[in-house]
Amino acid sequence: MPNETLEVYIAARRAEVDALLATYLPPASCAPASLHEAMRYSLFAGGKRLRPILALAACDAVLGRRDVVLPFAAALELIHTYSLVHDDLPAMDNDDLRRGRPTAHKVFGEATAILTGDALLTAAFALMAEKGLACAIAPKKILSAMLEVGVAAGSAGMVGGQMLDIAAQGKEGIALEDLHDLHLRKTGFLILAAVRMGGILGGGGPAKRAKLTQYGEAVGLAFQIVDDILDVEGETAQTGKPVGADASKAKWTYPRKVGLDAAKKEARVLIDRAVAALKSFGPEADRLREIAAFTIHRTV
Amino acid sequence: MPNETLEVYIAARRAEVDALLATYLPPASCAPASLHEAMRYSLFAGGKRLRPILALAACDAVLGRRDVVLPFAAALELIHTYSLVHDDLPAMDNDDLRRGRPTAHKVFGEATAILTGDALLTAAFALMAEKGLACAIAPKKILSAMLEVGVAAGSAGMVGGQMLDIAAQGKEGIALEDLHDLHLRKTGFLILAAVRMGGILGGGGPAKRAKLTQYGEAVGLAFQIVDDILDVEGETAQTGKPVGADASKAKWTYPRKVGLDAAKKEARVLIDRAVAALKSFGPEADRLREIAAFTIHRTV
Repeated sequence: MPNETLEVYIAARRAEVDALLATYLPPASCAPASLHEAMRYSLFAGGKRLRPILALAACDAVLGRRDVVLPFAAALELIHTYSLVHDDLPAMDNDDLRRGRPTAHKVFGEATAILTGDALLTAAFALMAEKGLACAIAPKKILSAMLEVGVAAGSAGMVGGQMLDIAAQGKEGIALEDLHDLHLRKTGFLILAAVRMGGILGGGGPAKRAKLTQYGEAVGLAFQIVDDILDVEGETAQTGKPVGADASKAKWTYPRKVGLDAAKKEARVLIDRAVAALKSFGPEADRLREIAAFTIHRTV
Repeated sequence: MPNETLEVYIAARRAEVDALLATYLPPASCAPASLHEAMRYSLFAGGKRLRPILALAACDAVLGRRDVVLPFAAALELIHTYSLVHDDLPAMDNDDLRRGRPTAHKVFGEATAILTGDALLTAAFALMAEKGLACAIAPKKILSAMLEVGVAAGSAGMVGGQMLDIAAQGKEGIALEDLHDLHLRKTGFLILAAVRMGGILGGGGPAKRAKLTQYGEAVGLAFQIVDDILDVEGETAQTGKPVGADASKAKWTYPRKVGLDAAKKEARVLIDRAVAALKSFGPEADRLREIAAFTIHRTV
């Protein structure tokens, strides 16, 4: 179990992220009402806010100003949420449940769900541009962070990962290398971008940022492996989706490829690597260390 | 008919935009191949590149450097193309033909088409951030242009317009005010953003930019009305989609609401207003004037 202090930290950051997003998005009463309602329904569905929290903890690790970095961190959640809404669509993973609630297309219809994802993705970049024009961070750093996010979320990253994931479904086998590539793109790159964003916008120097990159790479991959393990072992109450949902779609996962024990061992190795990357940091990186440990604890 | 010089200008700008986009996007051989192939299929489908050309002509009008503004103008076409790919989806307008060719989801399947749109939208912002970091324009101006585009393309703009369009289909009536609002959002705001982007990144002062805004508002609305008229009157060879496609979906258009003659008159009034807004500009705004005139000529 994570210690109480991390829990308090996570709850506090999550509340800040949620408050910012609730203020930023147009109210559900604003036309088109169904679109704005669906955006809020999808966004405020009990997500963990892992990506924003990682960005804020990375900002802490380079002794940056967390309050200034907050809106950019929050933008990551808009992108993550859009990807979930689109992944759930009938033409994609065709999921009826997400975090224990009916998915957006089940509630609002398919057309609205597609547009909801589009609007959330667009809002992420509009939010970063707007806050970038009105904050103390150098505009070049804002553009750097936006580029990180754009590349991580695009065809070479997250969208490409979802494409590879769909293409691999139902196939008889997948090379470990290809599964690794798929996971890196689908989950790893955006998590890495979150950590790097915190380093860039928090004002970290090149040496610190290089270490944060190592941390982010390891945590990003570990997170996807743990998610796969939870799909096999977790309870619906915890994951919000039926146990074995991936297996029932013939998805390729780490546990399926290498077995549950080897997958757990791999996750532990990655978490150790993530923590080791932070050796040169003082207690200012404790949150990042704790989040890495917390990732693996989700499976026990 | 537009004069030859405008035709030459349009062909030259279009070639520049296409060359930049062809270089920027990953090759179709790059994994995931089907995604990158679908992105190129959708992007290089014979589009007019109206939005990039308007941005470049607005840059000319403030005596800016067109070569520096080019990548940002090109990003607008990525956004426009993504919106077409998603609008064509079965859950949305369910179109089989676009510019005389099978739509993306017909060729590549629905999942790939959704991801293609997502990837094109993401690429637009990544392109602007990347080029913004490596060009002579002040980064604050880049962020301003990105904000314009993000707001124009989002839930208050283009995505919201598509939502309103779908919601209005099949209804027995629509207030002229609501139809106006729908058109402004669906087409007008991104065209306006294109013109404003050219003014901002071209280095225009506030007075010139205010005039460009008036021009962009009028041209954006005129363009949608002319599109509606072409849907009634145009030939498939010219528009690339069956004549009366909108009517067959019970879409609300200007000609349907006010009649064909009144729609044509309204388009002419708007074009006159657009040209009048440029009165204080010299011959450097001739391209913008000619493009406005060209818009209306498409209907005769």
